[in-house]
Amino acid sequence: MDTNQITILIEDIAKRARAASLDLATLSTDSKNAFLEQLADALIAQTQVIIEANAIDLDAAEKSGLSGPMLERLSLTAERIEAMAQGVRQVAALPDPVGAEIERLAPPKGFDLRKIRVPMGVIGIIYESRPNVTVDCAILCLKSGNASILRGGKEAFHSNMKLAEIIRGALQASGINEDAVQVIPTTDRAALNVLLKQDDTIHCIIPRGGESLIRFTVENSRIPVIKHYTGVCSIYIDAAAEPEKAESILINAKCQRPSVCNAAENLIVHQGATAQLPQLAKALHDRGVELRVDPKAKAILTGTGLPIVDATPEDFATEYTDLIISIAVVADTKAAIELINTNGSGHSDAIVTEDADAARLFLAGVDASTVYHNASTRFTDGFEFGLGAEIGISTDRLHARGPMGLNELCTYKYVIHGQGEVR
Amino acid sequence: MDTNQITILIEDIAKRARAASLDLATLSTDSKNAFLEQLADALIAQTQVIIEANAIDLDAAEKSGLSGPMLERLSLTAERIEAMAQGVRQVAALPDPVGAEIERLAPPKGFDLRKIRVPMGVIGIIYESRPNVTVDCAILCLKSGNASILRGGKEAFHSNMKLAEIIRGALQASGINEDAVQVIPTTDRAALNVLLKQDDTIHCIIPRGGESLIRFTVENSRIPVIKHYTGVCSIYIDAAAEPEKAESILINAKCQRPSVCNAAENLIVHQGATAQLPQLAKALHDRGVELRVDPKAKAILTGTGLPIVDATPEDFATEYTDLIISIAVVADTKAAIELINTNGSGHSDAIVTEDADAARLFLAGVDASTVYHNASTRFTDGFEFGLGAEIGISTDRLHARGPMGLNELCTYKYVIHGQGEVR
Repeated sequence: MDTNQITILIEDIAKRARAASLDLATLSTDSKNAFLEQLADALIAQTQVIIEANAIDLDAAEKSGLSGPMLERLSLTAERIEAMAQGVRQVAALPDPVGAEIERLAPPKGFDLRKIRVPMGVIGIIYESRPNVTVDCAILCLKSGNASILRGGKEAFHSNMKLAEIIRGALQASGINEDAVQVIPTTDRAALNVLLKQDDTIHCIIPRGGESLIRFTVENSRIPVIKHYTGVCSIYIDAAAEPEKAESILINAKCQRPSVCNAAENLIVHQGATAQLPQLAKALHDRGVELRVDPKAKAILTGTGLPIVDATPEDFATEYTDLIISIAVVADTKAAIELINTNGSGHSDAIVTEDADAARLFLAGVDASTVYHNASTRFTDGFEFGLGAEIGISTDRLHARGPMGLNELCTYKYVIHGQGEVR
Repeated sequence: MDTNQITILIEDIAKRARAASLDLATLSTDSKNAFLEQLADALIAQTQVIIEANAIDLDAAEKSGLSGPMLERLSLTAERIEAMAQGVRQVAALPDPVGAEIERLAPPKGFDLRKIRVPMGVIGIIYESRPNVTVDCAILCLKSGNASILRGGKEAFHSNMKLAEIIRGALQASGINEDAVQVIPTTDRAALNVLLKQDDTIHCIIPRGGESLIRFTVENSRIPVIKHYTGVCSIYIDAAAEPEKAESILINAKCQRPSVCNAAENLIVHQGATAQLPQLAKALHDRGVELRVDPKAKAILTGTGLPIVDATPEDFATEYTDLIISIAVVADTKAAIELINTNGSGHSDAIVTEDADAARLFLAGVDASTVYHNASTRFTDGFEFGLGAEIGISTDRLHARGPMGLNELCTYKYVIHGQGEVR
């Protein structure tokens, strides 16, 4: 396709999505759930053809030399398709966010004024190689009454197009406008660029992927973007930390799944708690964690026999997504807050302490989407929060911050019932 | 200043604002209110110097041939400064939005999880000629715990710099970080362009002004923008409309203040209510309103002796901000909804009817920030909604839609109290 054809294609997709979104906004919960059940059945029934489409992608990926973990992410098995279908049924079981009364206001003139949750309209989602994201995003957008335009990565192209076909079939079978879910049938970056300019018809863009994809989106989009950057999370061990809680929270946050965004990257220790540091460092080292230390932490750990490395200032602002941790010793809670606000990514940070005042100071002063007192940062997650599902974890402040569930895919409208009131 | 100097200046302003915002986030309500009272007093005490600075702007504006209404908007009198001070005291009297519990969640693991309202951080506001906007924006941002960076129009430059000096003095006298409110000391567009790239330190941009200013902002900003476009609002007279309500709502919405964004631009009449149209048209004409009609409305109004003009399709998507109205006759409520969703700006739309089903259909189907049943669209306003104040009316869907008060200048954080929970 040349640039002109791509422009026509994308503008057409966006206009269709906008038209479909107006139908979706007033669709009944039953109709939406009937579609979801239909889709779950279709995914199971068509397991074989999905696996065949996926095989084309896997084959191409192997030839292009994609790494083992990437191939693993790309691969769809009968078990994974079964899990996908189960996920669809779980979303069907969630309450419909649309139409709920969020707030009743008290206008001076006394008319009935309510803030009601409604769908955003059209949501564009840009993501990378995992094909199950296609189904996840489509169903969360649909359940929240939004039309979606999905643009997956080129590695999963055939898998995504097959899943799109199955979704479209389920929409048709349920009598819903088929343009409610559209997968862009090209991975040309020119198409993405045109997509990001459709601010008359698309209301929100959610990029889920690496930093370069997110930067490209922010720099080229005229449509509001909700970013899903990664996390630089800290665990702060206060002077009044209970040693057992400190160790189990730290080890959980760093080691349970080091590759995810809510895993800890920094350990900050109050100078009054440095007696705990050798044991904490040993527990980390025992689990294979590399220790990068500031001069004060170095002074304490030197002589313990634990291998340590000098931390650079940049280390405290780095998301390792690996078994590495940066360790600093600070004078007080205020200094810990400052270190976090300067170096962290505003994702999730925790204080371990039995001192309520220190906890209050930390929870108020740390500027992050989620702040913890005596719990692991690993809980920043839509399911762990009880949202039932999540489309991602926003690192933005506008509209949605932290885990985004169905409610966060909605906006609101003010609905007024009057008796002929005029100004 | 050359481009390099401008870049250094703006980056410095943004960094100072970010540092100030971290102080503001935990500032007590008393401290914020003490500043506001201090500022109100200072505005009154310095009335004369404000008027003198304003005289420089007025003089330059007159020489450059600015129109009468523009000069009027620019001008500051003792009375207007008194009103400004009163506005400041009103904001002091409003409840502090920061720290309020928005929601208590029910996470499966049972830890205490609350969603707490917190300031956004740093807000940039770009506006045009009225200097009172400088004080309005500064106080609403400060009361909601946000640092603000204000960039006014060049016509009001001297007035704005004097007001900035007074605000800074009041911050100093109240012991608050003076960088909490900064007015950009240049109206060079290059400075605006640099400002819009500071997405590491500025969290939200609110442009208030003409369409070209807003377009420039959206196209050049890496920071999330909340747009304040103007309104194309419709009044729909249903078949079951009560004629007296229809007339008084229509006349109020069109004529009470035709220049504002919540004034009506379109009259849509159900074919079963066309008997009401001649009287409605006469009432509009009697108040000097030009009538632009579609063919069906023309057929009804021809012979009434009222002067009518053929409406073009574009007329129904036009914000006249003047005594002009477009009139269409439609087959049913569904057609009215379609006309509005195709042509309106998603601001405010009203149905006049005694039929609850028609009202339900309209209120659910019209995609606008505010939908009315039997009341005038003129109520879309922060004060009329009981918000106490407004920084503007968002025509966006993300974060804030419709009138934006103090709550809408905030975001939230999740605060978790645990007992050592790990995953």
